[in-house]
Amino acid sequence: MSYRMVDLIQKKRDGGQFSKEEIDWFIENYVTGAVPDYQMSALAMAIYFKGMTTEETAHLTMAMVASGKQFDLSEIDGIKVDKHSTGGVGDKVTLILAPLVASFGVPVAKMSGRGLGHTGGTLDKLESIPGFNIEKTEDGFIDQVKATGIAVIGQSDELVKADKLLYALRDVTATVDIIPLIASSVMSKKIAAGSNAILLDVTVGDGAFMKSVEDARILARTMVDLGKSVGRETVAVITNMSQPLGLAIGNRNEITEAVNTLHGKGSTEFRHFIAELAQLMLSLAGLEKSIDEILTHLDNGAAYEKFVAMVEAQEGDPTAFDQLTADLNVAYRHEIRAEKAGYITEEKALGIGLVAMKLGAGRATKADQIDFEAGINLAKKVGDQVAVGDLIATLYSNRPITDDLLAEFDDALVITDKEVHPKEIIEIVR
Amino acid sequence: MSYRMVDLIQKKRDGGQFSKEEIDWFIENYVTGAVPDYQMSALAMAIYFKGMTTEETAHLTMAMVASGKQFDLSEIDGIKVDKHSTGGVGDKVTLILAPLVASFGVPVAKMSGRGLGHTGGTLDKLESIPGFNIEKTEDGFIDQVKATGIAVIGQSDELVKADKLLYALRDVTATVDIIPLIASSVMSKKIAAGSNAILLDVTVGDGAFMKSVEDARILARTMVDLGKSVGRETVAVITNMSQPLGLAIGNRNEITEAVNTLHGKGSTEFRHFIAELAQLMLSLAGLEKSIDEILTHLDNGAAYEKFVAMVEAQEGDPTAFDQLTADLNVAYRHEIRAEKAGYITEEKALGIGLVAMKLGAGRATKADQIDFEAGINLAKKVGDQVAVGDLIATLYSNRPITDDLLAEFDDALVITDKEVHPKEIIEIVR
Repeated sequence: MSYRMVDLIQKKRDGGQFSKEEIDWFIENYVTGAVPDYQMSALAMAIYFKGMTTEETAHLTMAMVASGKQFDLSEIDGIKVDKHSTGGVGDKVTLILAPLVASFGVPVAKMSGRGLGHTGGTLDKLESIPGFNIEKTEDGFIDQVKATGIAVIGQSDELVKADKLLYALRDVTATVDIIPLIASSVMSKKIAAGSNAILLDVTVGDGAFMKSVEDARILARTMVDLGKSVGRETVAVITNMSQPLGLAIGNRNEITEAVNTLHGKGSTEFRHFIAELAQLMLSLAGLEKSIDEILTHLDNGAAYEKFVAMVEAQEGDPTAFDQLTADLNVAYRHEIRAEKAGYITEEKALGIGLVAMKLGAGRATKADQIDFEAGINLAKKVGDQVAVGDLIATLYSNRPITDDLLAEFDDALVITDKEVHPKEIIEIVR
Repeated sequence: MSYRMVDLIQKKRDGGQFSKEEIDWFIENYVTGAVPDYQMSALAMAIYFKGMTTEETAHLTMAMVASGKQFDLSEIDGIKVDKHSTGGVGDKVTLILAPLVASFGVPVAKMSGRGLGHTGGTLDKLESIPGFNIEKTEDGFIDQVKATGIAVIGQSDELVKADKLLYALRDVTATVDIIPLIASSVMSKKIAAGSNAILLDVTVGDGAFMKSVEDARILARTMVDLGKSVGRETVAVITNMSQPLGLAIGNRNEITEAVNTLHGKGSTEFRHFIAELAQLMLSLAGLEKSIDEILTHLDNGAAYEKFVAMVEAQEGDPTAFDQLTADLNVAYRHEIRAEKAGYITEEKALGIGLVAMKLGAGRATKADQIDFEAGINLAKKVGDQVAVGDLIATLYSNRPITDDLLAEFDDALVITDKEVHPKEIIEIVR
């Protein structure tokens, strides 16, 4: 079948529903360049207003999968479980969760992404380990998982070619926050990457794409249904991204927090959060474990051992391990202290993420270089009580830390006399 | 001021209202290429859904005027009156109205466009006169109006550069039928063309952009207010385009109908329609004339004399005048005759316009060549009574006339026992 793109744009604009053939046609022709960006952006805007049905979203996802190579992980024994987060601030979950799950004998073959704007990316964090290589061929990736049970690499350029084009276009045409397009972007990459089961971490709050639990629930439901409809066991957790996750925001300092947690030295809440996610991933692989059994692997070195195996397999400098937990090596540091007594009521993830970016820890545009040593370590989290003068956070940078930036941090911080206890996991969508 | 286009797209998408500075910025930067097509098409689609206020539409119109040269007609004495039709089938109004108005001493300095799809264009019709030249410099245009009182030329490429780019983009991104964008496109060209007063013919019906009188009324009101807000006296007539205008649809045969009408041989309804439009144009120029006085200029040769003066000034071959009213010179012709008795209830303009296009009279795409001799002459119009076998229309083409095409004509024709009398002018918007 052949179509005129202008007719398809008009169909969606007028509230129509696309057939599988129509979706296949415009994705195929977009990847070849026959459908130009200016038609695809008009279509994306029409989808913003008119949406897509579950059926259309499933067809779009599979058309995107078909636009590139698909990894075949069948050579690896066992149920391979993948994990994806929709992004956040201080989100070092993969760095701990992947080796923790692997330590139970469940193979983890994962592709990760880079950070942009206020959000960090797992790849950048891994690259703050000297020598760490995030590029692998399909064979190299499979061989590493067979040998060590774990690999975390960069998204292959050969997978889901349509997503790379579409994502770059949506980024500059105000068409990013469209649930069916987010769902098909995430799920096409997960499906093409070849794992049998998928845990989705759908973040919600001011530091996430999804600002409301209602929207997060719709996105989670859409993705879970998509995964199931193509035979991949999929579970989503809706998690709180109103404040940064854990204590470190940056790159090398997030590695430090991850390593400390893998050594049994994480905070109680953070350890428990990771253990709950691990329990879901293990269950997807057919392994039922209690939270206590899982925490044991953080305390007895089993999870850390998998982390070391991964770093070594991916050419991380063995002499680097001592440095991973060392202090950040920066020219400027600034301590933020409580100016009044009370409880930390808000530590806004978006504001703090942007401050970390401006300290050098993130990218304002895709071309920016990251300073791995820059970042923020929080001493207090939402719900903690503070007295005047108590340390709340330390800022690290190789650029002078301006008063404007300190004012931005201040704007993100709210201290009142109200004690609040935010939930980490808001709900589970199966 | 500088902006990020993605922020402006998002502002409109979320229902915001643009400032003059924002509109000036994106039009300026679109013309230079700094704002790419893929951002402008996303913005156009957001405007489809969120609209523009009267104020935004006025700013957009003036930003578009500023994107090119503006003609200065002040050297020509008197109130210059321009006229624009939003397009239709068989619309040869300008060919008669312009010389008729000029015959009363009111200078007519008009730029016209080409046809596309089922709609015809005045330029194509004029070019069916051997030798007729539609290109003039600003000075040449002004000199001709000073010497003869009339000139009808092609839209200069130097005027309203943004419109050319934007129109081509809207055409392929399903963003044509957006009232504020249509209004600013039409009015920016009329304002840049320099006349003091403007008569707008807003067509409505299945052969027009506006399908409902309500939409036509909104478009007419928007354009009239726009014209007035920049000091141009503007009046709009909403006219019926549910059937073709007059009897001829094509190019050379529309010239023939125009010349016959200028010779006092037009049908009663069509003569009256033209006279009403002329009365409005003359009134805009400060001249109050009765319909009878105006019809006199069709009967006594005064209007035809102005037509001849224009054709001669624009290099039309003087030997061509005899041919203008000759029979169409084509290889194939087909007579459509009534298969049942009754009244013509519908002669759908869109369907008949498309048949004329396929006979060779129009362009399916901008690159297509027109066959000036191809077209349709109607023998009966809506409201006429027919007996079985009566001639309804003759089709002329240099391509074999297929049964499919005849079936298409048949679909556009409805004969019932109900007598209907459509109004030509539905209402006047001042």
